[in-house]
Amino acid sequence: MPHVNVKPFSIIDPKFKVRLNSVRLEALGDAIFAVAMTILVLEIKIPATNGPGWHAFAEAMHHSLIELMCFAISFVVLGIMWFGHRMIFEYIGKTNRYFIFLGVLFYMIICLVPFSTKLLATATFEWYAILIYGLNLSLSNLTLYLQWTYGIRHQGLLERELPEEVRKEANRLFLLSPVVYAVAIVISFWFPMVSILIFIVTPVLYLLPGKLDKYLP
Amino acid sequence: MPHVNVKPFSIIDPKFKVRLNSVRLEALGDAIFAVAMTILVLEIKIPATNGPGWHAFAEAMHHSLIELMCFAISFVVLGIMWFGHRMIFEYIGKTNRYFIFLGVLFYMIICLVPFSTKLLATATFEWYAILIYGLNLSLSNLTLYLQWTYGIRHQGLLERELPEEVRKEANRLFLLSPVVYAVAIVISFWFPMVSILIFIVTPVLYLLPGKLDKYLP
Amino acid sequence: MPHVNVKPFSIIDPKFKVRLNSVRLEALGDAIFAVAMTILVLEIKIPATNGPGWHAFAEAMHHSLIELMCFAISFVVLGIMWFGHRMIFEYIGKTNRYFIFLGVLFYMIICLVPFSTKLLATATFEWYAILIYGLNLSLSNLTLYLQWTYGIRHQGLLERELPEEVRKEANRLFLLSPVVYAVAIVISFWFPMVSILIFIVTPVLYLLPGKLDKYLP
Amino acid sequence: MPHVNVKPFSIIDPKFKVRLNSVRLEALGDAIFAVAMTILVLEIKIPATNGPGWHAFAEAMHHSLIELMCFAISFVVLGIMWFGHRMIFEYIGKTNRYFIFLGVLFYMIICLVPFSTKLLATATFEWYAILIYGLNLSLSNLTLYLQWTYGIRHQGLLERELPEEVRKEANRLFLLSPVVYAVAIVISFWFPMVSILIFIVTPVLYLLPGKLDKYLP
Repeated sequence: MPHVNVKPFSIIDPKFKVRLNSVRLEALGDAIFAVAMTILVLEIKIPATNGPGWHAFAEAMHHSLIELMCFAISFVVLGIMWFGHRMIFEYIGKTNRYFIFLGVLFYMIICLVPFSTKLLATATFEWYAILIYGLNLSLSNLTLYLQWTYGIRHQGLLERELPEEVRKEANRLFLLSPVVYAVAIVISFWFPMVSILIFIVTPVLYLLPGKLDKYLP
Repeated sequence: MPHVNVKPFSIIDPKFKVRLNSVRLEALGDAIFAVAMTILVLEIKIPATNGPGWHAFAEAMHHSLIELMCFAISFVVLGIMWFGHRMIFEYIGKTNRYFIFLGVLFYMIICLVPFSTKLLATATFEWYAILIYGLNLSLSNLTLYLQWTYGIRHQGLLERELPEEVRKEANRLFLLSPVVYAVAIVISFWFPMVSILIFIVTPVLYLLPGKLDKYLP
Repeated sequence: MPHVNVKPFSIIDPKFKVRLNSVRLEALGDAIFAVAMTILVLEIKIPATNGPGWHAFAEAMHHSLIELMCFAISFVVLGIMWFGHRMIFEYIGKTNRYFIFLGVLFYMIICLVPFSTKLLATATFEWYAILIYGLNLSLSNLTLYLQWTYGIRHQGLLERELPEEVRKEANRLFLLSPVVYAVAIVISFWFPMVSILIFIVTPVLYLLPGKLDKYLP
Repeated sequence: MPHVNVKPFSIIDPKFKVRLNSVRLEALGDAIFAVAMTILVLEIKIPATNGPGWHAFAEAMHHSLIELMCFAISFVVLGIMWFGHRMIFEYIGKTNRYFIFLGVLFYMIICLVPFSTKLLATATFEWYAILIYGLNLSLSNLTLYLQWTYGIRHQGLLERELPEEVRKEANRLFLLSPVVYAVAIVISFWFPMVSILIFIVTPVLYLLPGKLDKYLP
């Protein structure tokens, strides 16, 4: 197959356009999510017991329990993020360079979650751990929102009609958690316990029945 | 492609329904299994020998052998879980939000296997290690059972007829190991050696010829 | 879609047979290879220098170089194994329970490569490190050979004709390295340096032009 | 399906040629990139604070900030490399043994990025850290260039026409960063700060609008 000369017009013959469909970006993203979710477990240390009885075991588990709680929160949040990330590709079927770079930005924030989770597990009720954890989760949602907004505004990337209701509800879902996490961060200076509670409860909000469910199988 | 206004009825025009097929959930799951199975090896420490001879080597290997045994048990169990997880998607071809969240729950339990394996390798014959390891494996099967049961009860998710025999045999296979592991946990208070033996033998039960084999190629 | 009653004959209506094609087993395998290959890098420690000059740097790198060499050998060997594993699925397109379990066995051996590589990097010229590394690589080839042999003997799994020449040459390639590595293991008791040389040279044999190349694009 | 005898001519019946399409090599590559990008985070250590106040936190973060910067540079560079690696498969759709081995070589260099990033985070302004980091990034581009060049010269591997402008611009992009990084390495002996700046700025060059954008959706 010989190389072909294309006149460097800014509008080129459509047959030279590559498809650049989104399948491989999705594959990269799925694998990144899978690794980020799985390596969360590496932070849970083995409980060391001081004796054979139930009491010694319960004491040892106490330290592990906070790590397990942070693991579970982050895992569920990443699961919800993955779901959002999976949903946007029901509407977007092609990519371009900018869309991909916004995706890389989103994945970069996602990859930091094991770090901020480890920080939260180490300094659970410290304001700075809550600040960084909350910031990380907020930025995840905001960068995904950025990618989504870019995607739906470029006709060449959309592969099916986007109902207005879906667009509005998606925006609401993307922007809900950053607001809630901002509240958690502010509260943490006085009641860090409440901030942790917010981290636990927020994912549940995303598990409740929602307006978009009727668009799904 | 312009945004479209859909009247927010609870029944919407089928053309606005997204397919949300199961391919990407399967991809996420495959990658999570792959990472969980591979990082099991990170727990096996290098045997340090005290001298050049065969004897010093055998002594050093002794410590590694228990880690290798736990690695092998967990790897094979995860392989069997993966097979079950792969099989359910022969019948289920679409997903919705709840099905995906049940999947995330299942993956969360799977991701804990490297942790409970490490615990078992450290405190092999302690009742609490056996308790947590057995609990982890049981919960894996039970959460997959939950996801499967949800999936086959929602007509929109099934993509081929499910023979009654398959349904029954699948239930039996899902619920067999939790029962066996419960026995192992109880026994561990008196004969931890027997519990470990049960952990070794149980996967073999799943490798024997079974009723479902005739449905496979 | 209602559940269907299938009479439990050993021969069932073909429409109830699931396809169980090999795509997802391949996906699991690709991800396992990817993780195993990537975590090899975790074993390479950062060289610590004792001063700013070239000499201090060269000295520090000396320790890293053996780790880098072991990393490179294992990476290339895993790459070759992956190629073999990828090739068998040009002929095999479906799976069954036994084929999948042989696959899990193969992946288990592959997942041990980061462990045996770390051992070789720590005790490079010790006979036991060479023994375990050589054994690991040999078993990788032998378990893949087992899976391949099972696959091509079950008509339901093959998806294209297997030329006799391919079958013979594949056998030769599967069995070549176990023989060579056995030699390396034996030699290691007297000349461990030669064993390491064999580990370096063997992958190159698999990179040379071969009889099967004419079957490829 | 019986085994078939193929006369060992060097030209064989086309029906015995396997397709060996590039899908699985891409899957391996995507997963390797995903793991390499994600394990970058493992190198970021938790900041340990000496007290509860903002000042103590800022001081602790100072150490983490350099690690975060190195993480971000490497993540974005890997993202750009992934984009390049993804683009070449818009034109190349089949593989052969040599193309795959060049791919394995490229992936080997990519897998070293977490190592050289860790080195740079530890000894940020040392010439040898800059040398090894710059070398690693340069070699990534050069090995991908090698694979690409091999691929487009073998007619059997190309699956669509390659416009001359794309070929030229791709070459320019592949060879730009090795030159820039070579400059960074040389400069590091006098002004390591400038080298780090070059590492930060170079990825941005690849994010600017370019000649190839008009070929994308």
